[in-house]
Amino acid sequence: MSSLLIRNIKTIVQAETSRRSLSKGAEMAQLPTLDNAFLLVKDDLIHSFGPMTDCPDTADQTIDASGRMVFPSWCDSHTHIVFAASREEEFVSRIRGLSYEEIARQGGGILNSARRLQLASEDQLFEDAWQRLQEVIGYGTGAIEIKSGYGLSLESELKMLRVIRRLRTVSPIPVKATFLGAHAVPAAYKDKRADYIALIINEMLPAVAEEKLADYCDVFCDKGFFTVEETAQILQAAAQYGLKAKIHANELGYTGGVQAGIAAGAISVDHLEYTGDAEIAALLESDTLPTLLPSCAFFLGIPYAPARKMIDAGLPVVLATDYNPGSSPSGRMSLVVALACIKMKMLPEEAIQAVTLNGARAMELEDRYGTIAPGKVANLFISKPIPSLAYLPYAFGSDLIETIILNGKVWNGPVSNK
Amino acid sequence: MSSLLIRNIKTIVQAETSRRSLSKGAEMAQLPTLDNAFLLVKDDLIHSFGPMTDCPDTADQTIDASGRMVFPSWCDSHTHIVFAASREEEFVSRIRGLSYEEIARQGGGILNSARRLQLASEDQLFEDAWQRLQEVIGYGTGAIEIKSGYGLSLESELKMLRVIRRLRTVSPIPVKATFLGAHAVPAAYKDKRADYIALIINEMLPAVAEEKLADYCDVFCDKGFFTVEETAQILQAAAQYGLKAKIHANELGYTGGVQAGIAAGAISVDHLEYTGDAEIAALLESDTLPTLLPSCAFFLGIPYAPARKMIDAGLPVVLATDYNPGSSPSGRMSLVVALACIKMKMLPEEAIQAVTLNGARAMELEDRYGTIAPGKVANLFISKPIPSLAYLPYAFGSDLIETIILNGKVWNGPVSNK
Repeated sequence: MSSLLIRNIKTIVQAETSRRSLSKGAEMAQLPTLDNAFLLVKDDLIHSFGPMTDCPDTADQTIDASGRMVFPSWCDSHTHIVFAASREEEFVSRIRGLSYEEIARQGGGILNSARRLQLASEDQLFEDAWQRLQEVIGYGTGAIEIKSGYGLSLESELKMLRVIRRLRTVSPIPVKATFLGAHAVPAAYKDKRADYIALIINEMLPAVAEEKLADYCDVFCDKGFFTVEETAQILQAAAQYGLKAKIHANELGYTGGVQAGIAAGAISVDHLEYTGDAEIAALLESDTLPTLLPSCAFFLGIPYAPARKMIDAGLPVVLATDYNPGSSPSGRMSLVVALACIKMKMLPEEAIQAVTLNGARAMELEDRYGTIAPGKVANLFISKPIPSLAYLPYAFGSDLIETIILNGKVWNGPVSNK
Repeated sequence: MSSLLIRNIKTIVQAETSRRSLSKGAEMAQLPTLDNAFLLVKDDLIHSFGPMTDCPDTADQTIDASGRMVFPSWCDSHTHIVFAASREEEFVSRIRGLSYEEIARQGGGILNSARRLQLASEDQLFEDAWQRLQEVIGYGTGAIEIKSGYGLSLESELKMLRVIRRLRTVSPIPVKATFLGAHAVPAAYKDKRADYIALIINEMLPAVAEEKLADYCDVFCDKGFFTVEETAQILQAAAQYGLKAKIHANELGYTGGVQAGIAAGAISVDHLEYTGDAEIAALLESDTLPTLLPSCAFFLGIPYAPARKMIDAGLPVVLATDYNPGSSPSGRMSLVVALACIKMKMLPEEAIQAVTLNGARAMELEDRYGTIAPGKVANLFISKPIPSLAYLPYAFGSDLIETIILNGKVWNGPVSNK
């Protein structure tokens, strides 16, 4: 058994003694912390923590964290990091004044990524995604969900999901896989969308289940994508294979997506830029988590989801990056925390809970990740010296992570993917 | 003589053969570049560059930059990095719904920084600012301007300017100093502001000039700060000591600040969130540069300056961080470039010119910095492998700088300040 002792910690953030599975409403501002503390890791698990007066004398390895804070690693519950190519040329088109619709007519958007992905080899997709995964680990992410959805054919969706499975085998952090065959209707099915839905239900889902390639099933339930009825149809089929729902909803309008997700018993409904009283009321009656993606709103210039209103109504809020090549080409969770505070008026304590405990919960990982608690996996990071917790979102452009610990070991940065 | 050769560069950005002093209007989108190139540095200067077919055989040190781009270091022409303490508690007050006015009434704002700075020792101010300077060098900044303005007394303004002078002695990058005694009217002078202006003119300016502590004189000419008439009075006095003007204008309203700066022959007028046709017309008739600070607009949630309209009218645009503890607690220039593209609809090429050549010009450093040109100082950086120039602002959350070269040598990161 190897032991790692972190001493003289200014503050342990999310220092839990009793296990919580979620933080919601007014609790979100009550971040459990411990000042002037030690943290002891044994093997890959958090063994114990407490005030420095109770600090053990020795350990195999010791880190002095004077002036520094210890955080549980960020849990990023919504990403699309398997893709074939970045799409900055569409970004430039938008700067030049083109609308999404015009860009889509010119072959852009999700269908652009799908075309490129279909041409890419599984090996190349893996290499690129593995680099991205290591990049975001370097920004403090310690658990992640990854979606398919740029395949949009049986073969290519399976290719994406196999890449995610391969990532899981090499990744030092847990990876959850979500099947998102219903990300967009492919061009070839433009005039026969029912056929594409049948393909998802009759061919893709059975194959995904057969190879056990996914934990969840996602649908882009929104204006111009999939209707509430189509979403229900797909999620019902997925449920028969044991795939729980976790869906895209209300990014582009009040489309009933939130309610469709809740009706399907979704773990989470994600995006929610268009959330009104009806959506909040429905969420309050359910166990479905609202997951907000402020990097997307920032990058596209669409409204931010009403996080403040949701928390004030008593809801839990989850925050994630939505890292993808079209609407959120960033996997930096610290910037998500900053955007949540600067633009959505979440308190720093609320934003931290949204990307740790609640993020873990949105991946059903809250028993093992998301807080500093004895028995949980030691995925955490030590900050640079910072004056306070609020400094983190305030200093929105600064790199404030000094040391990353994964599975109880100091992480030494990206490794070659060869 | 030592030589450093960078080979196989994907693209040299701002690769100039003829010397330009500024880029404006439609020229801003015409970024000079050279693909598949080498760059040779001798001692601290850029010696030459050209296509790989002409690459020299050897050098004392060689770097292979396959897939990577070479940029001139960012020139940050507007910062306030000498300060005594961060002000994240005011940020939290704003999240909780307090207005600036309420925060100011509770003792916040510039006067808060002034109170803390007056209590801080020159040594401590130096240590903290030196850490910040090295932090921003790590984000790619290779030339910087720093203002006083949190002193607001003869003694404390001189203390700040001496800290900046001391930074200059240790800094690997050029530092320009700006005297900003007229940053705010101190509380003690609330009912006798003419006396404070007399103090600036009769005591501060002569002392600053006597010790040669400043290159420029700044005034916060805006609603609730200094009037156009007061600004003119201070800048005229400064001119008698050879201090050129470089002022804060039009952040809070259409106050005539831009025109006041132009009338005083200012090098630049900075902020300009409120810029209309009259301001643009006045700038077009002048040599005064408009400097925009999008991190401040982002952080405070105020309107962004109309960069697109200014460039389309034929103006040059400069971008800078405004790094300060109240309205822009970030010194990351890459994020300024991203904000300029995402929020102000500047093209990547325009934003790059605004933070390199034009930033240098706003500090009168364009003869030695701001582009990759033979004879200029070799302050530059090599990116990580990136697919295109536009990838830089597009991947707004990613760290894309791999190697920093200052004065012809690879920079190895922050040094201890002891």
